[in-house]
Amino acid sequence: MTTPSSNPLESLLSTRARYAVPLTTPRASMHPLYEFGGGYPDPASFPYDGMVDATARMIKAEGAAAMTYGDPQGYLGLRELVCQKYEMFESMKTAPENIVVANGSGQALALAFSAFVDPGDPIIAEAPTFSGSLNTIRRHGPEILDVPVDDEGIVTDAVRERLTGLRRAGRRCKLIYTIVNFQNPAGPSQSLRRRHELIDLAHEFDTLILEDDAYGELRFEGQTLPPLFALDRDGRVIRAGTVSKILGAGVRLGWLCAPRELVPALQSFLFGGGTNPFMSRVATYFLRDHMAAHVARLVSVYRAKRDAMLRGLDEILGSTDAVISRPEGGFFLWLRLPTRTDPRRLAERAMAMRVQYTPGAVFYANGGGERYIRLAFSFEPPEKCYEGARLLARAMVESAPA
Amino acid sequence: MTTPSSNPLESLLSTRARYAVPLTTPRASMHPLYEFGGGYPDPASFPYDGMVDATARMIKAEGAAAMTYGDPQGYLGLRELVCQKYEMFESMKTAPENIVVANGSGQALALAFSAFVDPGDPIIAEAPTFSGSLNTIRRHGPEILDVPVDDEGIVTDAVRERLTGLRRAGRRCKLIYTIVNFQNPAGPSQSLRRRHELIDLAHEFDTLILEDDAYGELRFEGQTLPPLFALDRDGRVIRAGTVSKILGAGVRLGWLCAPRELVPALQSFLFGGGTNPFMSRVATYFLRDHMAAHVARLVSVYRAKRDAMLRGLDEILGSTDAVISRPEGGFFLWLRLPTRTDPRRLAERAMAMRVQYTPGAVFYANGGGERYIRLAFSFEPPEKCYEGARLLARAMVESAPA
Repeated sequence: MTTPSSNPLESLLSTRARYAVPLTTPRASMHPLYEFGGGYPDPASFPYDGMVDATARMIKAEGAAAMTYGDPQGYLGLRELVCQKYEMFESMKTAPENIVVANGSGQALALAFSAFVDPGDPIIAEAPTFSGSLNTIRRHGPEILDVPVDDEGIVTDAVRERLTGLRRAGRRCKLIYTIVNFQNPAGPSQSLRRRHELIDLAHEFDTLILEDDAYGELRFEGQTLPPLFALDRDGRVIRAGTVSKILGAGVRLGWLCAPRELVPALQSFLFGGGTNPFMSRVATYFLRDHMAAHVARLVSVYRAKRDAMLRGLDEILGSTDAVISRPEGGFFLWLRLPTRTDPRRLAERAMAMRVQYTPGAVFYANGGGERYIRLAFSFEPPEKCYEGARLLARAMVESAPA
Repeated sequence: MTTPSSNPLESLLSTRARYAVPLTTPRASMHPLYEFGGGYPDPASFPYDGMVDATARMIKAEGAAAMTYGDPQGYLGLRELVCQKYEMFESMKTAPENIVVANGSGQALALAFSAFVDPGDPIIAEAPTFSGSLNTIRRHGPEILDVPVDDEGIVTDAVRERLTGLRRAGRRCKLIYTIVNFQNPAGPSQSLRRRHELIDLAHEFDTLILEDDAYGELRFEGQTLPPLFALDRDGRVIRAGTVSKILGAGVRLGWLCAPRELVPALQSFLFGGGTNPFMSRVATYFLRDHMAAHVARLVSVYRAKRDAMLRGLDEILGSTDAVISRPEGGFFLWLRLPTRTDPRRLAERAMAMRVQYTPGAVFYANGGGERYIRLAFSFEPPEKCYEGARLLARAMVESAPA
């Protein structure tokens, strides 16, 4: 609880406000030379001229509609584009009526938690899982039950155990939160077998799945698997998506793709009259014309960065017992530190070298992860991914306990 | 409760989702000839070229910052602009550190309710009050205690009565929600005396004031009074604002201006990494250069519309006992129907003539308002405000019970 103690009105705060955790990233004031912390898109790849051009074309074509209140469910053109994106990259068919546009997938996920989760309700989440989602989840006050992740993604046997335990206690899991592609932070993509098992479990135990996929289009290799939403035949999957990684996080456009019956309840937590009509149109006008080519370009940009960072790490850590993920896409590596590395000494050295990374513990709802770190290769150019990885890896080797 | 009964997962919904009320405006499918329903800004006054120009200048100057994650509290340039706006129009001094940017004042208000209100908590609100805010408030599940509004705004004696009653019952009011300028829908601006009394009451009963002001700059005549936030010496006032009415609702930019100690709790409910960095910059680049001139133009645009609508109503209703508000600014008239008018027959006639208005009952949390309607003069040109008002007024006269 980080409610400032200087707040004289603290006693007026809501229950949810008391779950507050700091939302700024650790060491935000570090001014890193090597920014491997947050999942920041590559700044050199933003389509600057394309956005200016799209704005001009959009205003000419749409005029007043861009400047006034819009459809509370989100701009229809963007919802159509989302459907095209799903079809293009994942052969998934859905309709604009199933899409609710939100301010980034962060808010989209919050809509689902708001619609289904009361304080104290049990939910299931992966351990590790995305720290930003954990902040959002905590603000809704559920009991978070951890399940581990292995090379095939979420361990469905562990999910079954959790669900069975809850049922025995007369309780019901409100939802299962899972990141299906290049799991953030651990890296695996959920296998097809696990996808089917997870859906069967949701059916058997009468609960929901909240499927998070922010990076799926950025696949460098390997096979795209069908989304849980596409495999589901029972209206139990809500899928969150975003253009933050394929266009830019600054446009704050994400969405939920949900069974139609659930749309009103989800949409009703979008306070403030629907997501940005102006921005939605600019993004749509750009992506309508450029999505396939732009994503193809980004795939090669990020693949080169991943490879450079892996090379830097491997060169130094090859002779240690460090375990490094090999994700088929996305923005992140997940690294189990060599046994001899002292995480605290590493943090000090990294700080001194101004190498930013994210310590593993923030990805665990209920403790753990102290011997892991997450490295984002998305932001820095390949040379710096390589150099910074070598610097950090050497610091790991040299950070043995005194 | 409008949870769709066709929803097989209804039993999974959260407590808050069960407070759902329809969020679409009544008769949205009417395709009105005279749109007097919602508070839609004048489409002819949107600065189309100005927005395209601001986008180009902004991208050139800001580049990557516009396309990636931003400050979770909101773009500093916009927070500075909000401070300049407060100084320019209300001689109010505040600092960017006090501002939290949100997706329109609707979401801004929701931040305050989320931070302070648990289901069942008592809050005080004006009756009538803005229907959109009532939707937001209801989603947080408080007990809403009505207080009336008269020519001087919120009736502070009634506030005292409510607060005293709560104290006697061992309960504490979480906040007092009030619309200070051209109260929506009733029209009055809160007098200086009432402003001081309200602040004294908040202090005496140890509660908060949530001051809503979406229209303050659009004052056609009369004196601007100091905001509650400026009069407060005790850190008890949170003020909500927006550029929806002076720039365009399509940019979805609003904010809270709050005592600094409260900022972290408020900001923590902005799920999704802060409000639109791209859009915030476009709006800021436009308003930085054009705010005073653009607002001056809008004041004369909306004044002409208000006068046209009042003229149309007065010409027909002058001989009846209808009571029509004379707001000094804003977008709305509030009208007590002539005693002989049957509200249901009026609604049928208006529908047939395709004149859209908002029935008074939606502005009351706990019943009432059946003999009132709200008319927005903001959207239609003055000629149509005049014509439509005459048509509707005649329908009132002719809608006597059979």
